[in-house]
Amino acid sequence: MLQNIRVVLVNTSHPGNIGGAARAMKNMGLAHLVLVDPLQFPAADASARASGADDLLANAQVVATLEEALVGCSLVLGTSARDRSLPWPMLDPRECGGKTVEAAATGQQVALVFGREHAGLTNDELQRCHYHVHIPSNPEFSSLNLAAAVQVLAYEVRTAWLAGQAAGGASTAAEAPALATMDEMEGFYKHLEATLVQIGFLDPANPRHLMARLRRLFARSAVDHTEMSILRGILTETGKAVRGEPHKRKEQ
Amino acid sequence: MLQNIRVVLVNTSHPGNIGGAARAMKNMGLAHLVLVDPLQFPAADASARASGADDLLANAQVVATLEEALVGCSLVLGTSARDRSLPWPMLDPRECGGKTVEAAATGQQVALVFGREHAGLTNDELQRCHYHVHIPSNPEFSSLNLAAAVQVLAYEVRTAWLAGQAAGGASTAAEAPALATMDEMEGFYKHLEATLVQIGFLDPANPRHLMARLRRLFARSAVDHTEMSILRGILTETGKAVRGEPHKRKEQ
Repeated sequence: MLQNIRVVLVNTSHPGNIGGAARAMKNMGLAHLVLVDPLQFPAADASARASGADDLLANAQVVATLEEALVGCSLVLGTSARDRSLPWPMLDPRECGGKTVEAAATGQQVALVFGREHAGLTNDELQRCHYHVHIPSNPEFSSLNLAAAVQVLAYEVRTAWLAGQAAGGASTAAEAPALATMDEMEGFYKHLEATLVQIGFLDPANPRHLMARLRRLFARSAVDHTEMSILRGILTETGKAVRGEPHKRKEQ
Repeated sequence: MLQNIRVVLVNTSHPGNIGGAARAMKNMGLAHLVLVDPLQFPAADASARASGADDLLANAQVVATLEEALVGCSLVLGTSARDRSLPWPMLDPRECGGKTVEAAATGQQVALVFGREHAGLTNDELQRCHYHVHIPSNPEFSSLNLAAAVQVLAYEVRTAWLAGQAAGGASTAAEAPALATMDEMEGFYKHLEATLVQIGFLDPANPRHLMARLRRLFARSAVDHTEMSILRGILTETGKAVRGEPHKRKEQ
């Protein structure tokens, strides 16, 4: 069940933090590490800080984009230091542990995404997440070390998992309908954006927050597979209709 | 109140861990660091890993024995990796956070004691503690990095402290945006249904469960006012586009 949970580190600069994160993961029983465009990996510092979690480093998946890192995931939680221009559903680490274990117990793939040491995650990256997770911290000194942040969330995941075990296994897993995966959602957002441009609702020259708002709306509703095919069908038919096919029919 | 809580590191071998612990403490709002007979301190590695928590290192108290480190404390909690020959009252990190904050709130001095990187605390040292704290971990890989262990307990202390603050009135609840009213939602569903018929996606003669599925989807996402006007705008523009205005333009 914990194997359905992956930790994604985006653009990490210090390999020591990758090693520290791997050790924290293994201590808490997590094994699936994904590195998005790390500055330096593999590296001696990473292995040194991993001190015994080298297997996680050896099996780490290195990819070029966050999109690749999230393939197959139906729940994505991204760590966020501060309030953003566009507010997003926020969880504290404990709620994050609960949601993560609940979803993983139903066989869903879950990603916990951590940003750059200094800059964190970009707004674009944060908008690919269903929830933002904020680790409560001292307002005067709020930025945690990357491995320390991984430790806190992994600890809450293990705590929630142990609570489930104690409660007699993953009995909370009501069979929810299979959710659309992140790659299906991204395909939908591309199709939606193109359609909004086509019907003249979205001005590519001045998109404002439109797509972000729509991402947030659909992220909240946890779209399932059937719903996804309905939404894609609507966009396809809209495209046809706008290209004037109804007029053709009238003419006959 | 948090100033009544001290973190005591016993016989630390790696100065980097002292720096990492200081950073974790400051992130969580703790300031009082006591070092019992550190192998190497002060040290460049410590300042490097502290990255901004140098003030905690500068003010750190360096003492020769655990006894000196605990002067003035009325509650002492010691981290313990495994069950000892002599069973002791055990707490998990969450219970540790609760007990620590509860005591500190009454003005008691509390010490959280962490042992050596490899050997932990001796039985003699553990027997000076009121409680032993065990951080749940993977039985096959159970030993946390020292700074990571400090991070977990400091996080639970802050979480318990914040819970107390919230109970004390300071509501942390962010004000949610005003949701669309039921009548607005009904107006939207009518508009959506009409549009789906217009684009030829919904066959009025055989509607099946389409609208019900879409209602369920949008109901789940609790649409707010701004989102509602975006959705209505999309439907309006779709209608215009389908009524062939693009064709008129082409004809000219």
